[in-house]
Amino acid sequence: MKTYLTRRITFSSAHRYFQKNFSDAENRKIFGKCYSEHGHGHNYVLDVTLCGEVDPLTGMVINLVDVDSILKDVTDPLDHHHLNFDVPEFQETVPTTENIAKYCFEKVAAKLPKGVSLSRARIFEADNLWADYYG
Amino acid sequence: MKTYLTRRITFSSAHRYFQKNFSDAENRKIFGKCYSEHGHGHNYVLDVTLCGEVDPLTGMVINLVDVDSILKDVTDPLDHHHLNFDVPEFQETVPTTENIAKYCFEKVAAKLPKGVSLSRARIFEADNLWADYYG
Amino acid sequence: MKTYLTRRITFSSAHRYFQKNFSDAENRKIFGKCYSEHGHGHNYVLDVTLCGEVDPLTGMVINLVDVDSILKDVTDPLDHHHLNFDVPEFQETVPTTENIAKYCFEKVAAKLPKGVSLSRARIFEADNLWADYYG
Amino acid sequence: MKTYLTRRITFSSAHRYFQKNFSDAENRKIFGKCYSEHGHGHNYVLDVTLCGEVDPLTGMVINLVDVDSILKDVTDPLDHHHLNFDVPEFQETVPTTENIAKYCFEKVAAKLPKGVSLSRARIFEADNLWADYYG
Amino acid sequence: MKTYLTRRITFSSAHRYFQKNFSDAENRKIFGKCYSEHGHGHNYVLDVTLCGEVDPLTGMVINLVDVDSILKDVTDPLDHHHLNFDVPEFQETVPTTENIAKYCFEKVAAKLPKGVSLSRARIFEADNLWADYYG
Amino acid sequence: MKTYLTRRITFSSAHRYFQKNFSDAENRKIFGKCYSEHGHGHNYVLDVTLCGEVDPLTGMVINLVDVDSILKDVTDPLDHHHLNFDVPEFQETVPTTENIAKYCFEKVAAKLPKGVSLSRARIFEADNLWADYYG
Repeated sequence: MKTYLTRRITFSSAHRYFQKNFSDAENRKIFGKCYSEHGHGHNYVLDVTLCGEVDPLTGMVINLVDVDSILKDVTDPLDHHHLNFDVPEFQETVPTTENIAKYCFEKVAAKLPKGVSLSRARIFEADNLWADYYG
Repeated sequence: MKTYLTRRITFSSAHRYFQKNFSDAENRKIFGKCYSEHGHGHNYVLDVTLCGEVDPLTGMVINLVDVDSILKDVTDPLDHHHLNFDVPEFQETVPTTENIAKYCFEKVAAKLPKGVSLSRARIFEADNLWADYYG
Repeated sequence: MKTYLTRRITFSSAHRYFQKNFSDAENRKIFGKCYSEHGHGHNYVLDVTLCGEVDPLTGMVINLVDVDSILKDVTDPLDHHHLNFDVPEFQETVPTTENIAKYCFEKVAAKLPKGVSLSRARIFEADNLWADYYG
Repeated sequence: MKTYLTRRITFSSAHRYFQKNFSDAENRKIFGKCYSEHGHGHNYVLDVTLCGEVDPLTGMVINLVDVDSILKDVTDPLDHHHLNFDVPEFQETVPTTENIAKYCFEKVAAKLPKGVSLSRARIFEADNLWADYYG
Repeated sequence: MKTYLTRRITFSSAHRYFQKNFSDAENRKIFGKCYSEHGHGHNYVLDVTLCGEVDPLTGMVINLVDVDSILKDVTDPLDHHHLNFDVPEFQETVPTTENIAKYCFEKVAAKLPKGVSLSRARIFEADNLWADYYG
Repeated sequence: MKTYLTRRITFSSAHRYFQKNFSDAENRKIFGKCYSEHGHGHNYVLDVTLCGEVDPLTGMVINLVDVDSILKDVTDPLDHHHLNFDVPEFQETVPTTENIAKYCFEKVAAKLPKGVSLSRARIFEADNLWADYYG
């Protein structure tokens, strides 16, 4: 019987909503105050939900030490950085909550050991806004 | 690949659990202190989960400005009102957490633009009680 | 050396902001949507901060069983009630956050055993609004 | 149309990660500081999600009084106890978050009335770690 | 008898810790990852605690509509901006939590009506870090 | 002008309320379920409030790196341990919330650099119970 384990980690980043294929007026209309020139920022929360069989001896789907190591590897390039400047994937792609969820999903999924799958990556931009990506 | 975006909004309402088809004794037995004559109230929290494709240019499932406008339209008739007196749907139907979730689901779903669907409406009556309606 | 112990309890009430000495227009102007005729409601949170010496044998300022009994006595008349209708003190006085804090302070302070004083009563009407009364 | 109702309850327990089939070195390597001899503890949070049809008269999937009675029965043997010593199921099985989720799921599911099913049991060991079991 | 009313508001900003009078090595040593060139960001929370007499007719220390108007005026220049670039006070002064608390205190205090004083401004940079300024 | 900086850290411990100078009946009467033989546990939260002048160059009361190092030193002996067994100070003294607050205050205060004082140590045993010690 599959069990799901979710681990939460936080990181703090700056970002700006800006699409080079839009005019200045379009950017302003679509992105509003998120288009502010020098960016703004958030305390992001990432929840990753891992799915697997519980090992009958350890009682674990996966060892938390391994999960935390993966999450640190994935979020270190984001934490205390400006997503548009410092993260290659967000130099062309707008770093919206939706896109950050997908980014984190793919980065985490690629690092999981055999037998454990990533069910969902959830990114909170604030207490009242979050995005879920299921792969 | 579908992505899910959830937005939270809060509203404060009074309500009373009362079923006119029940006797006074039945109402008291089934609804307990929620049957208190003049009602009581809660800070309700509504989470709506929207599902759609992420636009490759904007990075969004839907523009938040539009979501917030819909949620305001849906919750304004509930906020700072007494559900039993002020909301037609709850003059016959008991305004339980379950029924408020269904009410909000239907009101929000009817206002969504093409290409975005409502996956779930969740209503918290308190930190330790909530109802989910998936339509 | 004094130590401070704080206990939290929640209750759910309806209320309405209405001052009989004001005209209908004044009530509407001053109280806005809180003047809505049938009231609205909140999940109130009450934090009482008790001050005293720590008993060297028990390690306690006061036994929590006693604190909880006092808090239940104080909040039972408010919980699942409409403050304006069901609480004598709020039939003339507007049940604002400020006034509920004072009400709870006085009710709790009157019930404390010798050697323990009430430092503060704090009432949250919502996560983003609270009142403190120090007596 | 099915509706889901979730109720939260908390309990405080001590536990220790220890597998008698592992050597002392293996226990230390796998369980780290959770292998500390006399145990440590948590404020656990249990969320049970119940699924059923909403009764058109009461507006409820199930009466909360009944839910709370079941949850008290299930968590009383855990609350203010040391799971390894005081709970028979955890004398052989390591009381991980995953295993406690499964334990609670099975205990709650066995007590539900006809017409209501248990969709999920979720156990939080901390704000940043939880396990879900769906049966 | 004075009563204290606290109102919370949130805003999202980018910032960078950088002191032009320090060498690059000093900036890196003292500010660590907060010295990251393009900045990072937070969801800031501002709690302002107002002190005054409760008006016996309205039951209020101050009308919340007025408080919210002041808080919007104070936080609009910070919200969705980069503090180092967009706020004159932080072009020379490092925008630490301590300094943002002082900044908000002084801006709010200057706008309060007669009879109401600002007891404290508290700024949360994250759930586990905040600064208090009392003037 | 003094500014106050508060840092939060969490730790997970087991404990038992037991006073060897009390009879078994007295222990049971006074401590109730906290007297359970093998102990229970909590996710403790420690908030330390530090007071000092803000350095005009760094904008800081104290460097957070130093605060975190002190808090780790103070809480490591408590985290993932059983307070009654593993902490010398709690072998005679009952590890109540009040006493843990005093313990943490004294340990942190002894490690602070010159120019920074400890204003308060606050220990949460749960969301609805905490103790403050001001030294």
